[in-house]
Parts: sequence; C-alpha cells; structure tokens
Amino acid sequence: MALIVQKYGGTSVGSVERIEAVAARVRAVHDAGDQVVVVVSAMSGETNRLVELAHAISPEPEPREFDVLLATGEQVTIALLAMALNRLGCPARSYTGSQVHILTDDAHTKARILDIDEARVRHDLDAGHVVVVAGFQGVDEHGNITTLGRGGSDTTAVALAAALKADECQIFTDVDGVYTTDPRVEPHARRLSRITFEEMLEMASLGSKVLQIRAVEFAGKYNVPLRVLSSFEDGAGTLISYEEGDMEKPVISGIAFNRDEAQLSILGVPDKPGVAFHILGPVGAANIEIDMIIQNIGADGTTDFTFTVHRNDYDKARSILEKTAAELGAREVTGDAKIVKLSLVGVGMRSHAGIASKMFETLAREGINIRMISTSEIKISVVVDEKYLELGVRSLHSAFDLEQSETN
Amino acid sequence: MALIVQKYGGTSVGSVERIEAVAARVRAVHDAGDQVVVVVSAMSGETNRLVELAHAISPEPEPREFDVLLATGEQVTIALLAMALNRLGCPARSYTGSQVHILTDDAHTKARILDIDEARVRHDLDAGHVVVVAGFQGVDEHGNITTLGRGGSDTTAVALAAALKADECQIFTDVDGVYTTDPRVEPHARRLSRITFEEMLEMASLGSKVLQIRAVEFAGKYNVPLRVLSSFEDGAGTLISYEEGDMEKPVISGIAFNRDEAQLSILGVPDKPGVAFHILGPVGAANIEIDMIIQNIGADGTTDFTFTVHRNDYDKARSILEKTAAELGAREVTGDAKIVKLSLVGVGMRSHAGIASKMFETLAREGINIRMISTSEIKISVVVDEKYLELGVRSLHSAFDLEQSETN
Repeated sequence: MALIVQKYGGTSVGSVERIEAVAARVRAVHDAGDQVVVVVSAMSGETNRLVELAHAISPEPEPREFDVLLATGEQVTIALLAMALNRLGCPARSYTGSQVHILTDDAHTKARILDIDEARVRHDLDAGHVVVVAGFQGVDEHGNITTLGRGGSDTTAVALAAALKADECQIFTDVDGVYTTDPRVEPHARRLSRITFEEMLEMASLGSKVLQIRAVEFAGKYNVPLRVLSSFEDGAGTLISYEEGDMEKPVISGIAFNRDEAQLSILGVPDKPGVAFHILGPVGAANIEIDMIIQNIGADGTTDFTFTVHRNDYDKARSILEKTAAELGAREVTGDAKIVKLSLVGVGMRSHAGIASKMFETLAREGINIRMISTSEIKISVVVDEKYLELGVRSLHSAFDLEQSETN
Repeated sequence: MALIVQKYGGTSVGSVERIEAVAARVRAVHDAGDQVVVVVSAMSGETNRLVELAHAISPEPEPREFDVLLATGEQVTIALLAMALNRLGCPARSYTGSQVHILTDDAHTKARILDIDEARVRHDLDAGHVVVVAGFQGVDEHGNITTLGRGGSDTTAVALAAALKADECQIFTDVDGVYTTDPRVEPHARRLSRITFEEMLEMASLGSKVLQIRAVEFAGKYNVPLRVLSSFEDGAGTLISYEEGDMEKPVISGIAFNRDEAQLSILGVPDKPGVAFHILGPVGAANIEIDMIIQNIGADGTTDFTFTVHRNDYDKARSILEKTAAELGAREVTGDAKIVKLSLVGVGMRSHAGIASKMFETLAREGINIRMISTSEIKISVVVDEKYLELGVRSLHSAFDLEQSETN
C-alpha cells in the first residue's frame, strides 16, 4: 500500500465534468488499495473573478483581506470534489489549509509554509478516506488565513507529501510530462521518463513552466519524488527525483530557452574595485531582476560589462545604465532586446568533457553567432539573436541525440 | 461609547455598490465613537450559485461538504466589506465563523450555536477596529465547518451580541421595521417603534417574515435588545425588547395573518381516552406539522376534532385522516384548503378584558364567519374563509386603532 499525494490545478477542476473526471481518477487509485491525499486549486476563472471583485472595491486591497477572499476559491473545489468522490462510493473528507494546520509565516499573498500537522490527515487516511485539501492556502500563528502566491498549490502538495512521507507526489497538469525541449519549437521533442531535481530546477528557471520552482526546491529539500502527469490523458509522466547511482543517465536531459530576456552592455569602464556593484547596484535598487552577468577584462585598464534583464525592464534598465556610464566615465552603453537564451541542461555534464565545445561547434556550423556564454555545473547557456531560437534549439536537439529513446 | 452589532443580509450586500454603502453606514457609527461588529450574509445569488454547483455533482451532497461549500459565500462578503471599510479609512478586520470560534453542535446545515469565544473580537474592538464576522457559519468541536440553516446570520448576530454584552443588535433588512400588519393588505399599517420579544415571536411565527424566530428566541433568552432597520433608508426602525414597566403599552401591537393553512375535521368520533393521539399520531408520523388543534365535546358520546396544517400537506393529511376515521368508526371527514388565520397580538391583552369579544364583534359586523378560535396569553387567532382576509385585517386594524400614532 502506497501513500500518494495528487495535485490538480485550476484547469483540471475547471468544471463540474472535470471535477467528476478527477474523482474517477482518484477513486481508481483508492480502489487499487493506495492511500490518497488530493490537493486542488480554485476552478479556473474563479480566482480572476474574486480578484476583480476586490479591485472593484479597492485598488490596493489589504493583503490580509485579499487572502480571506482568495482562499474561498479552493474551498469551493475541495467541497465539490469530496461530494463527487462520495457519490462514486469513495469516502472522502475535505479540509481547508487552516483545518489541517498548514502553518505559514504572515507574509500575506506570498506566505511560506513553516509546518504541517499531519495527524488529522493520517487519521482519516487510516480510516479509509480520501483526504481532499485546499491548495495555495494556510494559516499564520494567529489563525489569520494566508495564501502562498503563484503556484502555491504545487507547494502545498509537496509539503503535505513531505510531512506524510508520501511515496510520491503527483502533479497533474495540462501537459503529460517534462520534455527534452518545447515541442512547439522542436517537433521531435521527447517526454523524459526521469529527470533530477537539479535539472528540473534549471529547466524550470529557464522557462519550462511545467512546475513552480518553489515546489521543486521543496521536493528536493525533503526528497519527495515528484511526478508530472496529464489530467486529461493516461501515461506515466515524468518522475523528478535524485540521481540514482545505477542509472545510466544520458549526458543531456533537455534544452531550455527563454524568450523574455534583453541584453545590456556598458563598455570601456575604467577598471577598479567596486565597479560591478556601482553598475548593478542601481539596477537592483530599481527592483529589476538581473539574470546572466559577464565581465571581460578589456585593454588599457578598462573593462566591458554585460548582463541580461527581463525584456519588460529593458528601457528602465538602459536609462539607469546611461546615468551610471556618465558617472563612471565609461565609453558607451549598448543593448539589444531581441535576444534569446538557449541552455543545455544535464547532470551527465558533470562527468563528460567536451559538451561545451560540441555545443559551440553545432551552433557555429549553422552560422549562429554566440553573444554571451554562462555555465554552471549542470547547464551551459548561450545568448543568441532572437531569430536563431528555433534553428538553435533544433540543431542542438539533434546534435545531442535527444530524440532517441532513453536507455532507462 | 456603545457596542453595536449590526447584521446585513444578502440583499444589503448584493453588489459592490451595496457593500460600499454598508461600509459608509458602518463607518458613520464607528466615527461617532461606538464600537461596531458587523455580521454579513453571502451576496444575494451567491448561495444559489453554490447550491446549483453542488447539485450538479450530487443529488444529495454530504451535509459536511455542503457546509464547507456554502461557508465560502459569507467569507467572500467579509473580505470585501473589510476592504471597503479600510478604503474609507475605517480600520477593519474580517473573521470567519471558525476564526472567532463560533462553536456549534455537529448538525450540519442546521447547526445550533453552543458557545462563542469573544476574546479575539473584543481585542480588535479595543484596538479601534471594526470587526466583520461571517454570519450563518460556525465550527464543531472537531473543527468541521458547520452552517446554521435558514436565517442563520440573524442568529450569529444575536449570539455575538449576547457574548459581547452588546448594547444593541441591529438587523438591517429590506423593510424599515415591524408593522402593525402587512402594508400590502392594510395601507394604513404603521411601523411600530417598539415591540416585545413575545409579541415579535407571535408575529414572526404567524407569518411576518421580518426576522427568523430562532434569532428572536435567542435575543429574548439573553435579553439582547434587537432593532430591525432598513439598509436602504434612514430611520429608527423597530426596537424589540422586554416589556418595560413604565411603558404605556397599547393593548394590541399588531395583526398577523397566515395564508398557508388548511383545515381538516374529523366528526362524530367515539369519545374515549387516547383518541387525540390516535388521530394526530399518524399525521405527525408522516412529518406533517400541525398548527391549531381544537376539540369540541359533541352529543351522544362522540367528539369533533379539527386541526390545521400547511396547505401543501392538505391532500396527504386528508388521506391519512380518512384511514383513521374508518379505524375509529368516525362519522365523516371534512376539510377546507381555502382558509386563513388572523391573529391579534399584544402583551397588553394580559391586563385588558374584552379584547376577544371586541374582535368577534368586529368580524361579525362585517359578516365574517369564524370557523375556529384559538387563544394564548398574548394573542387571539381565528380561522376564516380565505376571501375575508383583507376585510378582516382592515376592520380589525381600524377597530383597535392601530393606525394611531403610538403614545411612546
């Protein structure tokens, strides 16, 4: 008998019919003899409806009251799903975040889970019930309702799985797993049957929006095996777990990309200690997030400094940089909002040499100019012209044999 | 500084604009230096929407899950009202029934309040906040969400007022108070500035649907002065409280009527001990509620037995009675579904003789035949033909000078 935590997002519970389909799927697991905890989001559209109500009343609603309002969304879903399960003869009980003591800090609208009292859930599981828990919500130490922010339901599911020491946490979405790259860009993209937490973090942070980074981090920290599956079709999905010694890992797991970046350079900066902070400090102070950072030592005591920001922040960041350039006596500021970042991701890289040179060779053969390079232990990222996105992804996908079936 | 509990029903908070109007009204009380606790219902239409969702999933949803679902309705309203108050510069905090520990029994969908922990509310009030509480809902001793059934928000307000020893519990509705009779029947009907709990109970149970009987009983039991007011227009409304010694009470407070009754008689029943139970037992066993009961001693050792039921139950009750009549050897069963009950209500009756005879005389003068009479300490009810409803109400209203302004 396994203990499975399943999480269904807003689209998966977006109508009465879909809730009934989820109930049928949950019942099948329960009938097979496993214990099931189900975490659900608000029905799709419901959160928007509530947000509109709030904004009709106040342009900046108090975060505490906003959370009281938003938390009703998941509460509706848990009740309906429990009804649907009971109607199928599968005994079920619903709980709000507060009822199962999902204790969070008091950072309303983006609270973090501190603790979960799993006793009540375990009691119901042992009594043969399916337990349905509202995702996205918790309660602070004073009993105030909190919400976890974007993707919070994934985090709820992982946290419950960790607290209950579940055998697996299954995240049901509208895709059937994690792919070697985006199938809309590379039709030969292949679903991965397994991927490691570290790889998933790199894939997620690079724009593969299957799972929220927070949930993956949480799962990694507590070693909760995470599986991404489709709510709408059957299949084994992708299992995210720690690397296992006896696993014949492919060198590269996938290719991530990010279309949302823009590049800024400040050239001919007199090179002295503190210059990096002098350049990046004002950008960070304006709440602009910086992604890649590269500094080259230039000729004659000057240096060139390049970084990337979200494309929406390009104009703001550029005008800050112009000011900094004048202060520092830099030669010029250049920038380009039409760039993309391509990344090879794979834990196999650690023990394989020559991955980077093969990547650069492949791109060179296609005439793709590399503008920036940045590496970590398990990924290599390059910035190229926007127009090369598809060509770059496809040629790398083929060069690293990602369309091949996996060995495991 | 007074402590006021205000309750606004679904129509009063039925839209963003109305919630804003309620907020303005609450703020005025707060600005005047009083402490305010506001109890709200779900926005009108919201409960129906939730009920429809539930019934789309299950014809008989589990009461426990039904309560989890329904409780979201008021939770939306408390959050929105707290936002609206804060936006007006009036500090406010919202609480669900569970958060202020409105402890109930576990009779889901019709739970009864057992206790309220008023400490949290009082703490916020003392800190200068308006406290907004979800009506209609509570929590059982195991932390399960419960709802109080029809009119539950009135009960929440009264229970909070009792727990907090509030100076007044104000129920805002779509009428501006309690009237001597229904103004749609008697255009000269007058708003009462005061009425006693006992009178209000008689008026309410006789069909004046301004307040739920449970709330009035609760208020009477804990001696919470209750005021009925309009959410839409200004005015002092009607204060419901205990009779005060120095009050020059009018003899009659009002005339209630009930169109929903039907009369059934079983005639020529051999009179022996146990006959009443033999007749009424099977009716009660069929879940038919019996209102008035009258038994006359007849001639030659037989008795006549008459009672009234809700008009919807007439056919069912009649067929039960036919069967009983055969068993008992009664002479015949008669009945009439086209009757109404008129009632004079007034605590002043206790010390005034001649009220009944004046009532009968008034009806006789108009040619209205009285079919049944039933009396209590503070009311006299008669059953008459349906067609005499308006004539009966108006002639009694005039005969007892109810259109006169009150002396207090």
